[in-house]
Amino acid sequence: MKHFINKKEDIVQEAINGLVATSGGRLRRLDGYPFIRVVLRSDWDKSRVAVISGGGSGHEPAHAGFVGPGMLTAAVCGDVFASPAVEAVLAGILAVTGEAGCLLVVKNYTGDRLNFGLAAERARAFGLKVNMVIVQDDVAMPGLSRPRGVAGTLLVHKIAGALAESGGDLEAVTQAARRAVAGVMSIGMSLDTCSMPGSTKEQRIAPGDIELGLGIHGEPGAQHIRYEGARQAMEAAVGKLTSRLADGQRHVALLNNLGSTTELEMAILAEELRLSELGERISHIIGPASMMTALDMHGFSLTLYPLTEEDEALLAAETPVRAWPGIRTMDTPALLPLPDGLSLIKQTPSRDPRTEEFLRKCCEVLISSEADLNHLDLQAGDGDTGTTLATAARALIDALGRLPLADHTQLYRAIGQELSQTMGGSSGVLLAIFFAAAGDAASSGCSLKGALKTGLERMQEVGGARLGDRTLVDALAPALEGLDEGLLHAAHRARAGANRTAEMKEANAGRAAYVSSEQLIGNVDPGAEAVARLFEGVAADA
Amino acid sequence: MKHFINKKEDIVQEAINGLVATSGGRLRRLDGYPFIRVVLRSDWDKSRVAVISGGGSGHEPAHAGFVGPGMLTAAVCGDVFASPAVEAVLAGILAVTGEAGCLLVVKNYTGDRLNFGLAAERARAFGLKVNMVIVQDDVAMPGLSRPRGVAGTLLVHKIAGALAESGGDLEAVTQAARRAVAGVMSIGMSLDTCSMPGSTKEQRIAPGDIELGLGIHGEPGAQHIRYEGARQAMEAAVGKLTSRLADGQRHVALLNNLGSTTELEMAILAEELRLSELGERISHIIGPASMMTALDMHGFSLTLYPLTEEDEALLAAETPVRAWPGIRTMDTPALLPLPDGLSLIKQTPSRDPRTEEFLRKCCEVLISSEADLNHLDLQAGDGDTGTTLATAARALIDALGRLPLADHTQLYRAIGQELSQTMGGSSGVLLAIFFAAAGDAASSGCSLKGALKTGLERMQEVGGARLGDRTLVDALAPALEGLDEGLLHAAHRARAGANRTAEMKEANAGRAAYVSSEQLIGNVDPGAEAVARLFEGVAADA
Repeated sequence: MKHFINKKEDIVQEAINGLVATSGGRLRRLDGYPFIRVVLRSDWDKSRVAVISGGGSGHEPAHAGFVGPGMLTAAVCGDVFASPAVEAVLAGILAVTGEAGCLLVVKNYTGDRLNFGLAAERARAFGLKVNMVIVQDDVAMPGLSRPRGVAGTLLVHKIAGALAESGGDLEAVTQAARRAVAGVMSIGMSLDTCSMPGSTKEQRIAPGDIELGLGIHGEPGAQHIRYEGARQAMEAAVGKLTSRLADGQRHVALLNNLGSTTELEMAILAEELRLSELGERISHIIGPASMMTALDMHGFSLTLYPLTEEDEALLAAETPVRAWPGIRTMDTPALLPLPDGLSLIKQTPSRDPRTEEFLRKCCEVLISSEADLNHLDLQAGDGDTGTTLATAARALIDALGRLPLADHTQLYRAIGQELSQTMGGSSGVLLAIFFAAAGDAASSGCSLKGALKTGLERMQEVGGARLGDRTLVDALAPALEGLDEGLLHAAHRARAGANRTAEMKEANAGRAAYVSSEQLIGNVDPGAEAVARLFEGVAADA
Repeated sequence: MKHFINKKEDIVQEAINGLVATSGGRLRRLDGYPFIRVVLRSDWDKSRVAVISGGGSGHEPAHAGFVGPGMLTAAVCGDVFASPAVEAVLAGILAVTGEAGCLLVVKNYTGDRLNFGLAAERARAFGLKVNMVIVQDDVAMPGLSRPRGVAGTLLVHKIAGALAESGGDLEAVTQAARRAVAGVMSIGMSLDTCSMPGSTKEQRIAPGDIELGLGIHGEPGAQHIRYEGARQAMEAAVGKLTSRLADGQRHVALLNNLGSTTELEMAILAEELRLSELGERISHIIGPASMMTALDMHGFSLTLYPLTEEDEALLAAETPVRAWPGIRTMDTPALLPLPDGLSLIKQTPSRDPRTEEFLRKCCEVLISSEADLNHLDLQAGDGDTGTTLATAARALIDALGRLPLADHTQLYRAIGQELSQTMGGSSGVLLAIFFAAAGDAASSGCSLKGALKTGLERMQEVGGARLGDRTLVDALAPALEGLDEGLLHAAHRARAGANRTAEMKEANAGRAAYVSSEQLIGNVDPGAEAVARLFEGVAADA
């Protein structure tokens, strides 16, 4: 397993440097590398209660990513999945704790309890007021008297942090944190284990299975169940929590990405949560977002917390901390009706023998060129240009009776619609754009030449083909330029332009761009050839 | 490869529902499922220029995640890695475009160009002002005249979106977007390919390699190079951009997570970018964050953009869009000096024969119990409790000459420090906490019993052991309660408490918690036994 790291022992130091360096001055760190890795908010003046958390790294953005006004005052970072040492925690406490005291928010792991606990004692020997709460929100193992601390910790950070920011005293902040600790319940679920930087990945979960009730360090989960899809996975997670909820109580859900689950999947899981049997009891949601990860684990965790007005206000309190996704109402997705005008514009058919004759002639030229154009296309493409154009031409002849032949402005658009429906693929869309834009221009009073040139410009803007790129543009552009001097002149220019494409070594647009120049040289581009034949055909009749 | 999806064809619809449902009412969608999947901001009144983007899904949070005030007005979502249909784009345009017109921001892929292009023509037929810009920021293939559009698109969204939000007209918004398009340059790099939901993963990149210059759809990159670590990877990416930068110009970097790179790794990459040869030319950074992903690709992309004051203001303009990470200065990480007091408090040695004799007696009791306690521990643990305690006792005897024996308040703390240094492991930390807390209490004027009880409480808070959990608490707690009635009485209570642990079927704290009750029954807990022997020993001497 490869990772974007340098030396394994430098991971946490380098990552903290990166976090602090890109914080725009909002964060700083204690000058105690390599053993003391503490991230602090830059604007701290010790005037209020400090809220300190931390633990092993590998759970980013927890904990350092939540340092900032209204959440954590400092985060003490251990190695990946390892508790920080007593001295590091003590350094964090001493660096941010003033007369108002501090609260330590600790996840229930032996190492964290002991190291934060002893650091708290040492800090108290300095006369500091230090309280500590232990988060134990994981419901995975029902019999366990002291469950692990997982993503529910974020709610404790936010509730305690918001109260401390607003000036709450240590007793009040501690009480709020204890209330949050008592209320949070979480369950994790994963399709795969995580990969430790510098180690090979353990393959524990069978291909058709999903693990339910796992921890945030890749610890084995409580059970493996058959995996049937996002809906069933969310139902299984919800099933572990439902019986623990008080009736008639609204809840906030925290939907946490354990690492490498895509945002598409997380959004689907959020939708499944809304549709689940718990959906109606959840008034608010935090996330989906990566908050308490297990490195790159492909899984999620769901935390529920009974929501009172007091806690809702604390959870909603403004914080500039970017990793905090905010709390939002969870609602039925709001719909806006489709706008009018999506169906194709219906044209009123009209007759005009001269126009009909002209169009029929164009179509016949294309139909009679089918084999030749296919042959040319075989040199650089898949040999279907002739058939594509001939098919569209036959369809257009069939459509002549329903076209607005007497209204040339409407006619352009109608032809564009017919072509985009019958031709398909890129060329159909490009010709549709050509005729639609020409119609627009004609309706604004443009001359024939002006309208067609507008069409060409738009087609080039969208298709990207420029003169010399070996496309139909190489015949069409010079032909339109020559139109003022008569159709015959335009036809000569189209032919000259088409022939030049046989000397172009590189195609820069369309499929021929992927073909070597040896295959291209000597062959006229089939699109340019079609344009030249069109102009030659109508000029001969004129 | 497993994913949190239900039916493959429902992925995008369900994900959009999830996104809208958890937006707290900020987003809505067009009522056009399954073909029309358009996400819109809820507060839109068509009074300003609309900025519309979109394309294939699988790049989340792009594009729907960037819908909101100051960024996109609407996002049109195709299937995973597939362009949305013309009708869907047209629906998006018609739904949000008023007299001020709209700008389409399109990444340079043929499907997107064609479908957005034709939709633009159709919308113009309704009399709407529609402009379009094509983003082509990927520098991976130097010869390519029309590079792909990748993460640089985000800068176009933000610059155009901020100007539109502030009331800029269509011409000004389009010009700003064109300026951004002309200036952005990006390079991608990945350790692994991405996995399409519902498909097996292509294994293209050799174990020791990294791919440079890949696209955001898992397209093969421009080259495979040997992978040597985060520093070398960033240097290779930077090397593709350096020659394109104008001299004497400051830049903003956008550091994008392509999907499943952990935040630890992204922070390390940010640090390497700062330390790279480009570091000094980058004044600001956006990210690191997931902005334009390729599903779960384990890679990153780096985008650079020359920063003018005008664009800096547009990039810094407030937006509530959560997926936008904001623009921040990139600085040398700020350091705070370590606080005083981290080194252990030095105690002034003092003599007191009675105390010395008392302590020596305690130590001798533990030393003489080594074998018995080890034997007891073998039943439930690894058989080293006796040796751990005896080793600590021997070290304490050696330390008697440097302890503040005449100052009992200081003595508690000094003993705690000695034990935490010589015992190691959980038990050393817990005893250090016991003595430190007792010392604290004594210094606040507590009686001997009160001080020791405070120590016990703190030890229990941190260690988590309660009465009946089969730990030394079961002997120590009753002994302390009995202390008022004399040492002998306390010793009797300690013994009775220790003996009761032999009847406890379950251990709830410490290592014995993992041992079956058959192994525990009939054996006294070695910690409780040690406490009982201590009390019995000193009581016999008293």
